[in-house]
Amino acid sequence: MLIVMQKKATQDQVDRVVDAIESRKYQARPLPGGERVAIGVLYNKGAVDANMFSSMPGVKEVISVTRPYKLVSRELKADDTIINVGDLQIGGNNFVIMAGPCAIESYDQAITIAEAIVNKGAHMFRGGAYKPRTSPYSFQGLGEEGLEIMAKVREQTGMPIITEVMDLETFDQVESHSDIIQIGTRNMQNFSLLRRAGQSSKPIFLKRGMAATIDEWLMAAEYILEGGNTDVILCERGVRTFVNHSRNTLDISAVPVVKKETHLPIMIDPSHAGGHRDQVIPLSRASVAVGAHGIMVEVHHEPDKAMSDGGQSLYPDQFEQLCVQVEAIRQAI
Amino acid sequence: MLIVMQKKATQDQVDRVVDAIESRKYQARPLPGGERVAIGVLYNKGAVDANMFSSMPGVKEVISVTRPYKLVSRELKADDTIINVGDLQIGGNNFVIMAGPCAIESYDQAITIAEAIVNKGAHMFRGGAYKPRTSPYSFQGLGEEGLEIMAKVREQTGMPIITEVMDLETFDQVESHSDIIQIGTRNMQNFSLLRRAGQSSKPIFLKRGMAATIDEWLMAAEYILEGGNTDVILCERGVRTFVNHSRNTLDISAVPVVKKETHLPIMIDPSHAGGHRDQVIPLSRASVAVGAHGIMVEVHHEPDKAMSDGGQSLYPDQFEQLCVQVEAIRQAI
Amino acid sequence: MLIVMQKKATQDQVDRVVDAIESRKYQARPLPGGERVAIGVLYNKGAVDANMFSSMPGVKEVISVTRPYKLVSRELKADDTIINVGDLQIGGNNFVIMAGPCAIESYDQAITIAEAIVNKGAHMFRGGAYKPRTSPYSFQGLGEEGLEIMAKVREQTGMPIITEVMDLETFDQVESHSDIIQIGTRNMQNFSLLRRAGQSSKPIFLKRGMAATIDEWLMAAEYILEGGNTDVILCERGVRTFVNHSRNTLDISAVPVVKKETHLPIMIDPSHAGGHRDQVIPLSRASVAVGAHGIMVEVHHEPDKAMSDGGQSLYPDQFEQLCVQVEAIRQAI
Amino acid sequence: MLIVMQKKATQDQVDRVVDAIESRKYQARPLPGGERVAIGVLYNKGAVDANMFSSMPGVKEVISVTRPYKLVSRELKADDTIINVGDLQIGGNNFVIMAGPCAIESYDQAITIAEAIVNKGAHMFRGGAYKPRTSPYSFQGLGEEGLEIMAKVREQTGMPIITEVMDLETFDQVESHSDIIQIGTRNMQNFSLLRRAGQSSKPIFLKRGMAATIDEWLMAAEYILEGGNTDVILCERGVRTFVNHSRNTLDISAVPVVKKETHLPIMIDPSHAGGHRDQVIPLSRASVAVGAHGIMVEVHHEPDKAMSDGGQSLYPDQFEQLCVQVEAIRQAI
Repeated sequence: MLIVMQKKATQDQVDRVVDAIESRKYQARPLPGGERVAIGVLYNKGAVDANMFSSMPGVKEVISVTRPYKLVSRELKADDTIINVGDLQIGGNNFVIMAGPCAIESYDQAITIAEAIVNKGAHMFRGGAYKPRTSPYSFQGLGEEGLEIMAKVREQTGMPIITEVMDLETFDQVESHSDIIQIGTRNMQNFSLLRRAGQSSKPIFLKRGMAATIDEWLMAAEYILEGGNTDVILCERGVRTFVNHSRNTLDISAVPVVKKETHLPIMIDPSHAGGHRDQVIPLSRASVAVGAHGIMVEVHHEPDKAMSDGGQSLYPDQFEQLCVQVEAIRQAI
Repeated sequence: MLIVMQKKATQDQVDRVVDAIESRKYQARPLPGGERVAIGVLYNKGAVDANMFSSMPGVKEVISVTRPYKLVSRELKADDTIINVGDLQIGGNNFVIMAGPCAIESYDQAITIAEAIVNKGAHMFRGGAYKPRTSPYSFQGLGEEGLEIMAKVREQTGMPIITEVMDLETFDQVESHSDIIQIGTRNMQNFSLLRRAGQSSKPIFLKRGMAATIDEWLMAAEYILEGGNTDVILCERGVRTFVNHSRNTLDISAVPVVKKETHLPIMIDPSHAGGHRDQVIPLSRASVAVGAHGIMVEVHHEPDKAMSDGGQSLYPDQFEQLCVQVEAIRQAI
Repeated sequence: MLIVMQKKATQDQVDRVVDAIESRKYQARPLPGGERVAIGVLYNKGAVDANMFSSMPGVKEVISVTRPYKLVSRELKADDTIINVGDLQIGGNNFVIMAGPCAIESYDQAITIAEAIVNKGAHMFRGGAYKPRTSPYSFQGLGEEGLEIMAKVREQTGMPIITEVMDLETFDQVESHSDIIQIGTRNMQNFSLLRRAGQSSKPIFLKRGMAATIDEWLMAAEYILEGGNTDVILCERGVRTFVNHSRNTLDISAVPVVKKETHLPIMIDPSHAGGHRDQVIPLSRASVAVGAHGIMVEVHHEPDKAMSDGGQSLYPDQFEQLCVQVEAIRQAI
Repeated sequence: MLIVMQKKATQDQVDRVVDAIESRKYQARPLPGGERVAIGVLYNKGAVDANMFSSMPGVKEVISVTRPYKLVSRELKADDTIINVGDLQIGGNNFVIMAGPCAIESYDQAITIAEAIVNKGAHMFRGGAYKPRTSPYSFQGLGEEGLEIMAKVREQTGMPIITEVMDLETFDQVESHSDIIQIGTRNMQNFSLLRRAGQSSKPIFLKRGMAATIDEWLMAAEYILEGGNTDVILCERGVRTFVNHSRNTLDISAVPVVKKETHLPIMIDPSHAGGHRDQVIPLSRASVAVGAHGIMVEVHHEPDKAMSDGGQSLYPDQFEQLCVQVEAIRQAI
């Protein structure tokens, strides 16, 4: 961290900043320049809060130099983390397709969709049992019954399953049924949930918060690794911007940046990013081309009747077409 | 809701949309126009998900007409909700100042700050016992010990207290100590927490999510009212935008809009919005002038040594000056 | 356009809105509903300004139904516009690569770069003669000398050239030298410039404004078509959001949306979107995969010494590698 | 500027960065740290482009230390700039109210509005003669006739006038009629226009670009001062964000930040920020309370019939009420 003083800062103000640094057990190293003094803050473990210094008298601005995360950093661990789910490998040179309905509505719905995708390219089955819904009046998911349906689908199709966890109370339940546990965009900074995930034996699928910077996202992953669980998959699903033609704005350049910063795998959810069926196939092609480790897409056999997110769900034949295109691009790059 | 068909939509496509509407128990009312057909969706209870229809063949776009919220709506309840905390009234024509440190660090720190503000204009004492922190390596709060310190401060100064709850596990604890329970920006859509808050006997202070629209924010409040707790105070604390000179961008026009849409009180947190001490006093003046029902500000007697958010905390004498200015503006308007 | 009245709107308020509509020569068609009245505005030519009605007494909200653009709309012209520049075709199934330095610095620099890319995949040569620079103290381009250098490069390499125009005063000059005229992101709503472009005989390359919605962008193109010039190429170059890891946020889903809405070609500028060399190749791969009609990339033989945007310029061998990858993906899809 | 090298950067990579710095005539000063090297760039005049270095091998990130602007900086000139327009003073402790219609529609319209506001608190008369409109089909203003109407209004009411200039071609015309020349949000980075404004003898009213940072805004002002015109008034008018309840998001904390960074006056345009009549009065109160040097508001005697922006225009009696409230707050602070 570098603290830049104002041109007219007095020696007393500089000293006071140095004291504030040292009172927190960091080292202060003043760097006199032509017009103004800057003060380096050295040997800090973890993050130093820039806010502490930015409003002290004489301070012009505070600049962070090092990244706040440690365990997720590629500087710490250079080689890609590969996560094993049965025979499936996520990360490295593998490309994984997770597919299924937004919400599990019934056994018939779930098995119909699963059988439509299992041999067409899907590696894992996704579906919501506990659903975070903006409105308390919307369908909230089947809960434990939904988890049991998913387990039955796994048994019959051989696909491992992934579903979202919403709170500490139902964590054990989700953990016992699911092969990968999803933490959704609204819970990316639910730190109690992250701490619990850090103690889980299952891989965690951590969606980016809709207004999270990459630093904040990787810090959320750091919570999980710090708790002891090193199997974290990141998932970019679009961020909130002024743009109104898609549900969210897919931040596709996050993929090369995240791959440079961390050893963890990164996937893309084009369904929630686009929010309209027409956008999902092009965004999926872009996802594999940009270098993501996989995609998660919503598929429904009767999207017009789906209980949530029907408009962004693919028809099964569109999903099949998507898998063909994605595979062709994979071969090309 | 209004579903606008493409110019070239076939009768078959129109019929299919009508079917999709009616299969969900809504009424469909086609509205033929000069160039294209639009279909109204009538008598829906709660929200209809626009996504269901937006990608159906022949559909150009889907437009929501009614607001998704009910209980929080001023159309339902025209007069302001007034919330009583002891002798204190929040809402209506009252203006409330909540102040205190970001985090409770020790009894000495808490009581020092509380005594510095109690007769200067502060009506309530704020402080964090459980702290949501971006980094797992940052100070996470004193937990239950912090709650007990706050209770002691209340006893000695007479100020009611407000503190944040982070999860279901510690909800009872926070509820039993605190006079108002805060739900922070990162938990605005933690629906499990909102449902628990709906069963609480204490008022809930609901901060706006940093990327939430007013609709989403009011829907979060709707969860609490729907659960049975009608005492909700909304708090605007800045949203995330491209702007980089303040910690967040204070969306000050949210105040007149929220006051028009809902009967619930709305306050402003200028400390988290600005993020720099220099901005807090001007933003506080603007908050009272724009018509907010109160402000929540951070104060610390030694901000350079504060364990979190020191840079945005006011010195006690600045707080005193702030209260004088705020009161003067209140008299003026 | 649909004007939704409040539940308690009086008949008098409804009448007043109807009058306001008809006084502007539109037709008003009231649509009584269960709980409230809505009023349709019919047969409007061009756009109706929602603002006119949104604050009238009794009005709850105003909703636009039809798109404001006409000539650029695919509803008007179903087949793709193909733009011919010599033997080169832009639009339809063609994929075009425009490459070259950010700024023309000297003849030696320009020809060195042009020769390094001409047989490696570049179809056109780009370079800035007049440069829009945030700072008045930055290098502002060589002006007319730069245009002459570009013309010489065209003569020697056979590549057509594209360069940016900044104002009416230098428009003729740029028009006489350049094969395609670029209007940059900061001038997307410089309406005087757009009107002049509408009278040009050269194709216009219209970059998206950094905060423009797709509607606004297409309306800017509409200015040019309305003036008589139907050869417009759109270029997505990233929008401004809270995201800070790339120079701008590439809004990649704009491609399928724009292709649906308009018959005009759409290209991507991954250099300005990413802003860092490491992001340019992955974003280029994503651009072709998503279905763009081409890319514009910055290349420099000595980026460390470039007078602008060196950090986002590719080395010639990286450009060659990019072209190979792009071509492979093109074959695959 | 500070260039932070990666932990594993080689000495050769460090040397190469030093060369790149020195080849641009700056001084390089390597600062070896515990884990990595950082290199300071010293004695640069004007701005150094961070992009030049950020993608060089071994570079982790590049950090700007000094502000890019000089002449507008309060570090250069400590006391407030006061701009005189006849007897009117803008800046310092003065508070100015500019009011009038969005567009000049006719002499009758203009004089009716002007006479309704002249003794109610308005100091200057605003109105658009050349109008930047998103659609080519919208009313584009009366042009020179509008300017002549405004001049007549000035003559009859004594109020100085302000109107927008859109291009170089009409600059002389606008300059000769107007007392202050407005450059609109879409032209904030129209550098040709800024250079022309730098040579004007009239004060320039520079609206913030809807996606501009404060740095970029002050750099646009720097263009004008660098050209020789030191009379620049800044005007915050809202920025573009995801927020959809107001036309733009008023970035009210820009006021204290701008006042700290520059000696130039800063005003607020609550009409364009809010975009709805209901928001204009509360935002005006907030503007004076936060410390702005004035406001610009739209007033129309028949807003339902206005040719542009009717929905955000105040009725004359609302304007009068606004002036009373604003004055009361001014007295209070």
